[in-house]
This record gives sequence, structure tokens and C-alpha cells, in this order.
Amino acid sequence: MKTGVVILAAGQGKRMRSRRPKVLHPLAGRPLLAHVLAAARALDPARIVVVHGHGGELVRAALADEDCLWVEQAEQRGTGHAVIQAMPALTDMDRVLVLYGDVPLITPETLERLVALAGPTPLAVLTAELDDPNGYGRILRDAEGRVVRIVEDKDATSDERAIREINTGFLVADHARLVSWLDRIDDDNAQAEYYLTDVIELAAREGVSIATTQPEDLHEVAGVNDRVQLAELERIHQRRQAESLMRSGVTLADPVRFDLRGRLDAEPDVFIDVNVVIEGEVRLGSGVSVGPNCVLKDCVIGPDTQIQANCVIESAEVGANARIGPFARLRPEARLADDTHVGNFVEIKKTQVGRGSKINHLTYLGDAEIGAGVNVGAGAITCNYDGVNKFETRIGDGAFIGSNTALVAPVEVGAGATIGAGSVVTREAPAEQLTVARARQVTIPGWKRPAKKR
Amino acid sequence: MKTGVVILAAGQGKRMRSRRPKVLHPLAGRPLLAHVLAAARALDPARIVVVHGHGGELVRAALADEDCLWVEQAEQRGTGHAVIQAMPALTDMDRVLVLYGDVPLITPETLERLVALAGPTPLAVLTAELDDPNGYGRILRDAEGRVVRIVEDKDATSDERAIREINTGFLVADHARLVSWLDRIDDDNAQAEYYLTDVIELAAREGVSIATTQPEDLHEVAGVNDRVQLAELERIHQRRQAESLMRSGVTLADPVRFDLRGRLDAEPDVFIDVNVVIEGEVRLGSGVSVGPNCVLKDCVIGPDTQIQANCVIESAEVGANARIGPFARLRPEARLADDTHVGNFVEIKKTQVGRGSKINHLTYLGDAEIGAGVNVGAGAITCNYDGVNKFETRIGDGAFIGSNTALVAPVEVGAGATIGAGSVVTREAPAEQLTVARARQVTIPGWKRPAKKR
Amino acid sequence: MKTGVVILAAGQGKRMRSRRPKVLHPLAGRPLLAHVLAAARALDPARIVVVHGHGGELVRAALADEDCLWVEQAEQRGTGHAVIQAMPALTDMDRVLVLYGDVPLITPETLERLVALAGPTPLAVLTAELDDPNGYGRILRDAEGRVVRIVEDKDATSDERAIREINTGFLVADHARLVSWLDRIDDDNAQAEYYLTDVIELAAREGVSIATTQPEDLHEVAGVNDRVQLAELERIHQRRQAESLMRSGVTLADPVRFDLRGRLDAEPDVFIDVNVVIEGEVRLGSGVSVGPNCVLKDCVIGPDTQIQANCVIESAEVGANARIGPFARLRPEARLADDTHVGNFVEIKKTQVGRGSKINHLTYLGDAEIGAGVNVGAGAITCNYDGVNKFETRIGDGAFIGSNTALVAPVEVGAGATIGAGSVVTREAPAEQLTVARARQVTIPGWKRPAKKR
Repeated sequence: MKTGVVILAAGQGKRMRSRRPKVLHPLAGRPLLAHVLAAARALDPARIVVVHGHGGELVRAALADEDCLWVEQAEQRGTGHAVIQAMPALTDMDRVLVLYGDVPLITPETLERLVALAGPTPLAVLTAELDDPNGYGRILRDAEGRVVRIVEDKDATSDERAIREINTGFLVADHARLVSWLDRIDDDNAQAEYYLTDVIELAAREGVSIATTQPEDLHEVAGVNDRVQLAELERIHQRRQAESLMRSGVTLADPVRFDLRGRLDAEPDVFIDVNVVIEGEVRLGSGVSVGPNCVLKDCVIGPDTQIQANCVIESAEVGANARIGPFARLRPEARLADDTHVGNFVEIKKTQVGRGSKINHLTYLGDAEIGAGVNVGAGAITCNYDGVNKFETRIGDGAFIGSNTALVAPVEVGAGATIGAGSVVTREAPAEQLTVARARQVTIPGWKRPAKKR
Repeated sequence: MKTGVVILAAGQGKRMRSRRPKVLHPLAGRPLLAHVLAAARALDPARIVVVHGHGGELVRAALADEDCLWVEQAEQRGTGHAVIQAMPALTDMDRVLVLYGDVPLITPETLERLVALAGPTPLAVLTAELDDPNGYGRILRDAEGRVVRIVEDKDATSDERAIREINTGFLVADHARLVSWLDRIDDDNAQAEYYLTDVIELAAREGVSIATTQPEDLHEVAGVNDRVQLAELERIHQRRQAESLMRSGVTLADPVRFDLRGRLDAEPDVFIDVNVVIEGEVRLGSGVSVGPNCVLKDCVIGPDTQIQANCVIESAEVGANARIGPFARLRPEARLADDTHVGNFVEIKKTQVGRGSKINHLTYLGDAEIGAGVNVGAGAITCNYDGVNKFETRIGDGAFIGSNTALVAPVEVGAGATIGAGSVVTREAPAEQLTVARARQVTIPGWKRPAKKR
Repeated sequence: MKTGVVILAAGQGKRMRSRRPKVLHPLAGRPLLAHVLAAARALDPARIVVVHGHGGELVRAALADEDCLWVEQAEQRGTGHAVIQAMPALTDMDRVLVLYGDVPLITPETLERLVALAGPTPLAVLTAELDDPNGYGRILRDAEGRVVRIVEDKDATSDERAIREINTGFLVADHARLVSWLDRIDDDNAQAEYYLTDVIELAAREGVSIATTQPEDLHEVAGVNDRVQLAELERIHQRRQAESLMRSGVTLADPVRFDLRGRLDAEPDVFIDVNVVIEGEVRLGSGVSVGPNCVLKDCVIGPDTQIQANCVIESAEVGANARIGPFARLRPEARLADDTHVGNFVEIKKTQVGRGSKINHLTYLGDAEIGAGVNVGAGAITCNYDGVNKFETRIGDGAFIGSNTALVAPVEVGAGATIGAGSVVTREAPAEQLTVARARQVTIPGWKRPAKKR
């Protein structure tokens, strides 16, 4: 059985009040549509067709890496019309599953359950029980419980309005039968649109036994129409992720103040304090603790390392048992070995730091290679840029870089060398020696303190 | 019809456990009383009279800019007594609206609805339906639904206690009638206080048809008696503001972690990450993104500018397409042009920065004028203060300021000039030239590393 | 009446997925077991016996300071078996109270109420009314309301399952009677474990009148079995603490974004902004305000001092009316007098700062003694470490330390001295004089800007 998936992603989303197409608004850092594509992909379907409309080029560009077909719905003429646009791309499929680009939290588990129903029967529909079904099409069943019709909210009698089972829009159908049903739906309604819902009615009238199932969680079928709803689903998604992490052995100081926008691979006994944001692909070794207000993006942190409060780490690697922060910033290609210490107001970029080295205060290291057991004093700076080119600084094992030192790259400090505080190092500093570059201290005789002007 | 507003603001607020008068406790950065004054002001009344008591001088001082009359209630003898104090200031009014300085979330819409009722009838009262009416005065109505009495909780029969409609205390009354009713209330009760509520009973007894309306939202009539209630209303208010921003086209990563204490004017497609605090008057251009944990106060940020994590910006202006942070601090009179970059651990105060200039690391700029296309290296510092006076630094277009440079103001660096890393610049650095002020590097022969003492 | 307390702390806690014993997982910064010990201690019992099992050495080591006896339960054979292990250590007690190391929020008030019941009667049990009692043992009572039995969930009839009163496991019993009951329980059940619950049944069968009471709050009897539950109880505990602080006169901008892990002693009119974390023992004077995202640990802050956004303060003292931050870090033994200012990107360690002194930007002070009225310029650094030893810097009253200055310790700057910007001070700088150590500024003739390589 070959399953084709159609994802309807042509809606304008006026209530988003945005220049951006609705399906590109991010949830947990990825476009809504990317979440739906991921759920679809988990089913391993034979083909995925995305029907775009408004801002289609932007949508295609944003998701250019996705292996799917793109079909345009030039005019917005309803969900049925949208699916019709996709059918030519699905002629060799056995069945068709319809998803929505703005309903991002649908799970593969629910979709698998739904798809499994279509086989014995040519149409399966995902329904949901709502406490407040107002505004939704109700599922009408006969005395035997068979679906016979969907009645729109505005057309419902008061008895029908009391029905709490509603149509979510998700369905899977036999390909050939879907084609024949879609041929027969019309736009003879107030909106002059072709509704996919009408397919269900046609099927019922043909005496087709319509299978139904329901999602585990109602949020799976909730759509995003404005940014209030977007924020609600963001929070639901974050809460899901947080619970899954906690169950796998991560302590979150406050699951409500945790944001994961990507993938976190955390070994057991990781502690994550309040208000941490994780982006991209992050790996945290066993026993790592991450302090409050840290932002970690695309990084790998070794076991038992402490990331203290208010750090920002991006595209960096830190070894085991290191101590980073507070107020540290690790930028791309910072690679810190085990047992390193990086302290407050320190920025490290494209720099290797050897085992046990310490860079504790007010330092900028860029384009450098630092050996093991090095001590970099407060205020030390690698001057790696001449306005046009970048140059490297090399510091040997065990060197001691005095405070407030400028290392003018390209430059090398030998192993075991000491640089006197306040020096500007422009040439090689030999190993094991003290090198200074410092002016003589003089006291000016007869000098008077300046007086207040004006 | 001239409407006079009386705001009762004399309560001590013992449960606040504060030296500060209750109505001065801030909600969203402004005193409770300021919120009530703003709601009153929105009705465009002929006069506003605030009745103060405890700490009255403090209250008047804190709200000295408000156009209102201040009346003292020297003794705390009840709400009726408080209104009586205000009446001499309202003799030329047609009707009087009574508000409460510690009930801050009342909306102009609700007040307008209430005031509109008083005209056809001399008394209109704001009531509310509570799930748990315990402790409140219940509204008693006759078979025709007319208000006949208010019964205090402690005096209510068990039937009366089941009534869920309660008196909120807000009312509007014909001026002359109110005077006559107030003349007749007494303090013959357990607290020996004059209750404004008694006016309603007198009116009902006179056969006056008492009009009623209810607020949209129960929080509108919730008072602040302790800091727990204050925090609750703060959150309700913040949530209201957050929703309104989201509906207008701002994405909030988490509406529950957003604080606006003042006014935010945000164009569509602004993104605000978690835990951001906005104070004063802030304008954010279209496409601006604000990273987590930022504090923005009284500033203007141009379109498509990125404010990264952990920035603090106050009384500053940033152009379009700039990149600020993480860990940047912009202080008053920092004015950054388009396409500027300000990086980590950088402080900028009273300084203009020209288009495309970059100040990326560990820098302090104060009292400076920086041209376009300037690169300021890591650790550069304007030495703008001699302990008494402040002096200016001027840097021409395209200059390159080497790392760890001290610019001793007053000083000028010409256009296209280069300052060597680690220099202390005390005199003009000519345009297009390399200027350095740096000691010679020497290696000390025979020097030995210090040994551990003790 | 001598009361002995048994705390059952031997559970493995597999669902925590942790190398750490369950009772050592922290809640509000302290092990779960420490919370239970504190509640027990509040009763002033004659003895506390902790029954440990899995990871017992770790548990004993972590709580080595606690005055209690430790008993091992080598095999996990049920709660009854665990209490049996403790009985030899309690032979001289009149009664025995049983607590649980993984039920951390039990309050002394509830325990006192429970213990007070045991005296008139030999057994008192803590029960609770749950909305959803599924999974818990139900309390069966006879027509007179006497407890007759506890029926396990799986053995309950459908009538019994409707009972909402459940057994919490907490009980207090006459010592001698408890011994006799424990002698008679067996492990003849599906789990082959000895259940403490069976004691209740035996007592009832003997015709003992079993007293019961209930906790004020259901969270008091909630256990921690996984990290989701741990996070829930953490939040409940934090909320309790936040409310108590608010009622005592502290304003919390958002009680849901406040973490106290230890003890906060705050005078009235303290303001704590969003997302603040307090650890250890912290004292805040009246009128102190703490900005968003600050972390305060073991520190004392004087009245009316402002801690601005994003500060990290640990084991430090700050006087009255000081202004700290944003982005300041005070480390152990920083002691700042009244009226001091510490600004952004400043780190202070083991340093005294005199009254009114200002250290406003990008500075590191370590091992220093700073007088009163001193101004430390941007980028000034005490070079206190030679790689092996630490040395002191002394700065006299009223001194002015120019920007970007390195003070190479041991060194002294006299009172009223001025250090020129960019100096490296290696010898004493005399009082009232200007001292500089700065290279001559030269402009290099004929120099050309570097060109882009590659």
C-alpha cells in the first residue's frame, strides 16, 4: 500500500498580521510546516505533496531541503479545491492522507492509527471530543454508531449542536475513491468554496463505512490562526518536550521556564536551571549543570561540566569537568578541553584551549591555540584582526599571561613563558622566560588635580 | 452633563506591610492610583477629585503631574465619609462617579457603560457575579428584578448568602441626589464608619430605579489589599497587554514571561523572546527581534535589528539592521546608526556611532562621536573623565582602533587612521596614518618563575 | 512522652533514572530527605532514625551534619520491614512517628496535629481526601465512622473504590503496641513485602480506636517518584515561600518566577523583579530592589541598595544606598561600603571598597583594599596573581585610577593620587600626585593599511 500525503499550506493567515506566510511562523524555532512535514515523514510515506498559495516562493525557499513535491493553489477556493490541485501528483498512490500546515502538533502515533484504519475501509476520519464544540462541524452517527454526515455548526439543529464529537479535517482515503468524490463536490455555498468535508458526506451516502479515531491529546488537532494560538501551542510543545526530558533523567528546575528549539541529547543527571534556552543540536554529558538564563546553541558539553548563570554558548565544544561562567560567551569553534575554567566577561572564538587552562576574567580570545595549564590573566586580549585579515596567536603549555596584556597576532608565546602584566606583545615571547613590554612609571612633580569646569 | 469623578485613595493598606501608601504601590511600573486616574481620564470627565489620607503628601508628590484636585480625609471614617469630603469640590457637577485607588484594572469601557446608565436614572451601580461571593455585600432584587437592598455578608440569611451577585462599590449618581443621600447615612454600625453602600439602600427606599451593569472581566473590580493580590493583578494586567500585542502582530515566545511597564509601540513581525522586560516608552520597528532576558527602557530600535540575549538598553536609539549583544549595555544618549554591530561586554553612553561601525568586544565608549565604518577593537576604552570633568573623543570615518587601546579624551582620531593595539592615545592621531603608543618588548634574561609562598 | 521518628529513606527511585539516591535529589537546593528531617526536627523529638538502603553511604555523607541515627535496610522488603529495622534503635521511646524521605512537603503543623492524637489512643493515621483516589489504599470506616480497615486499590470492590479517603502512610503509634503489631505482619502477598499498612488492620482488629487527621494541603503527602513529580513539588514549595514573603512585605514582580533555595531574610519594601534566584542565606535591607535575572547567594545587602539587572552576587556584603550592576559580579569577600557604585562587567573578589567609591565599568578587583571616594576607571585591573601567589593592592581615599590601568600587586596608590589612563603601575604611586607609566605616542610615516590576503 503506497500512501501519499497532502499537506495543505496555502492559507493566508490574515489574523497573524504578518508579512510572513502563516506556515512559516516558527514553533520551537522551526516553521509550523516543518513540524507537519516531520510528522508526515515519520510515517515513511511514498510521497509528500505540499499545496502552497500565498507567499509560495518564501515557503519553498524556507523548506528547500525537504524532499517533497510543491503544488500551487493559485486561488484560495477551499480545502477540497486545494486537495484537487495535489491529486495529479498522486495518481500512483493507493491512498491519500490529508494534513494541515498550520496544525503543527499532530503526532505520528495518531496518524499511524488513522492510516491503519484505511485499508479495510476506503475512508478514515480523525474526530475529537470537545468540551466546547462551538464553531466546529459535528459528526452525526446513526443508531449503530456509523458516521452518516457532518453538519456545519451554523446549519446544526439544537440537538445536533449538543454533539461534542467534531471533525478535525484530518482524513485518509482510498486514492481512486477520493478522486471520484472530489469530482463531485461543488462550491455551491455561502463562501463559494470547495470543502473537503463534503467528501465525507458523499462517502456516507454511498454507504461507505467510515472509520474514525481520535487523537491522544486535543492539542494535536489545534490550528494556528493568530499569534495567541501560536503561543499556546508553543507552550504545549515545550511542556511535552520538558516532560519527556524529565522522564529520561534530566532535572528541570522549572519545566515551565525551559525552551528547547531543536534537539537536546542529555545524559542522566543533567540539571538545567530556570529560564534556559536550548537551540539547534545540543549534547550534554552526564552530571552537567546549566545555570539560570543560559542560551546554548549547537554545542557539546562534557560530563560534570558546570555552566554557570548567564552564559551564551554557540557552536562550541567543552570537555569534561570544566567550569564556565557566569557571563561567559563561547562563540563558534571555541573548543575547550577537560578541566578548563572560563570566567566572567570572557569571549572565546575559534580557539582551542588545552586541559586545565584558566581564562577567568574580562578576556577576548580569537583565532588562538592555547596549550594546557595556561593561565590567562584578567583583561588579556588577542589582537587578531588588523581591519582586513585575521591572525593567529599561539600560547604554549604552562604559559602565564599577565593581566591586561595585548597579544598582537600573529604572535607566539612559548611554553612556560611569563608575560608581564600590561604588556603589548608583538613578537615571539620565548619559552620559560619573562617578557614585558611596559613603559616606565613616573610621578609628575607639581601636578595639580583638574578643577571642575563650568 | 458634567461628570465629576471621586477616587477614594485614603486607605492605609496595613496588609501591604509597607511604609508606602497602598495606592502608590506599582503595578506594571506605575502606582495603582495612576491606573485608576488613567481609566477616569479616558472618560474625559469635567473634574477628578482624589481623596487621600494616610501618606497624602507622598501620594500628591508621586502624582504631581496629574490634573486633579486633592482632598484630605483626615480620619478614616468609611467610604461614605470619604465621598462626603469630596462633595464640596463637586458642587457644579451633574453627576458623580466613585472609583477606588486600589482597584486598578477597571476599564474605561466598563465605566462608560456605567456612566451611560446614570441619566435616565439617578443611580447606577456596578455589580458582579462571583462563583464565591463569600464576604461581599449581596444585591437583593425584587420579583421584577429591581435592586431593593444590599445585604452585608455577615447580616445575610442563608438564602441571601446563596446570591452570587455582589456590590463592587463602583457607582455613579446624580449629584444633588447623592448629596441628599450622603446627608442621611450614619455611622451606627460595628465599625462606626459611614458606608457609601448605605446610599444604595436609601435610594431604593425612595423608590429610585437603580440601574446596574457588570464588568467584562471580574479582575476589573478586584482590589489590592496585600502583595499577593498585587502580584495577581500584575499578572492579569501583563497577560492582557501580551494578548493585545500578539493580536497586533508581535510574536511573544512566552506571553507568561513578558513584562511591559509602560508603552510598547511595535510594528508587525517583531519577535520577543522569553523573559524580556520593557519599561517606559519603547518603539520597535518591523522585524526587530529581542533576545531572551533583555531589558529595554525608553528606546527606539530600527527595523530588522537584532537585539541578542541579555542586553540592557536605556534611553538609546538604534538604527535599522543593527546587531546588538549578547551582553551589550546601551546607556542614555547612545545613538547607533543603521548596520552597526555592538557585541558582548560593551557599554556605550552618550555616543554617536556611524553607519556600519563595529564595536564587538569588551569596550567602553562614553562622550564620543564615532564615524561610519569604524572598527573598534576588543578592550578599547574612551578615558572620558578626569575625576571632575568629562571630555569628548572623536573618531573619523573608517578608522581602525586596535585592541586594548585607551583613548584619553579630549582626543581625535582622524578618518582612516589606524591605532596600534595596546596604545594609549593622548594626542590627535592623524588621518590615514598608523599611530602607536606602546613600550618596547624585552625579555628578561635569567628570570625565574615565582615560587609558592608559605 | 518521648517520641521517636523513623524516616524511611531506602527506596531506590528507579523512575528518577539517576545515579543519585532518590532522597538526595534536591528540592529548593536541599535534598528531599533534608526537608523531611527539618519537619521532624521541628517537633523536637527524642530521637530520629533514618532507614537507608540503596546508596546509603552517599545519603549519610550528604547529611553528615544531621543529628540522627542511621539504620540500614539491606534488602528492600517493604515499608513494614523498613520500620522493623529501626525498632531496636527506639526501644526507650513511648511512641513512634513514621515519615517518608521522599515526601518532602509535610509540615510540622500537620505532624504536630497527628502526634497529638496518639496518646489517648495507641494509633493515629494521616489520611487525605482525593478527588481521584485511584491507586491508593482506601480508608474503610464503620457506621460510627471508626476506621476498620484499609483496602488496597486492586482489592477494592466498586463501592470501596468510590471512597475518596486514602491512607497517606504517615502514622504515629504507641511503641509497645507497634512492636507487637510489626511482629505479626507477614509478606504473604504478591510483592512478597512486609507492609506497614497491615499494622492498621491489626490494630483495628484488636478493637483499637484509630484516630485520624488530614493535612491542610494535599501536597504535604505527595511523594516524589520521578522528576516530573519532583518539579511539581519544587514549584509548590516555591509558591508557598513566595506567598509567605509577599505577606511579610516583599513585592515579587512575578511569584511564579522566583526561586528561593535557602533562607531569605527580607525587610519590608524589598522589591524583587522577575526571574531572580536566591540561594543560601541572604539578607536584604528595607527598600532594596533586585533587578531581573539576578542570582544572589549567601549575601547581605544594605537598605535602599539597588541591585540592577543580571547581577551575580555570592558571599559578599553591600552597604546601604549602593548601586550595583547591571552585569556586576561580586564574589566571595567582596565588601562594599555604603553609597558605592559598581557598574557593568565588573568583578570584585576579596576586596573592601570604601564609602562612595565608584567602579563603574569593565574592571577586575581582587585582593584589594580601596578607600572611600575612590574612582576606578573603565578597564582597570588589579594584577593580583603571579601564577603562584596572590598579592594585595591598596588604594587610598580619594584616589583616581585612570581607565585601562593595570595595578601590579603588591602595590599601593596613595590617598588622593591620580593614575594616568593606560598606565601599568608596578611601584607605589605617591599620594596627591599624578603617576603615569605610558609609552610615547608616535605616528609612523609612510605606513600603509594592510590589504586583504587571499
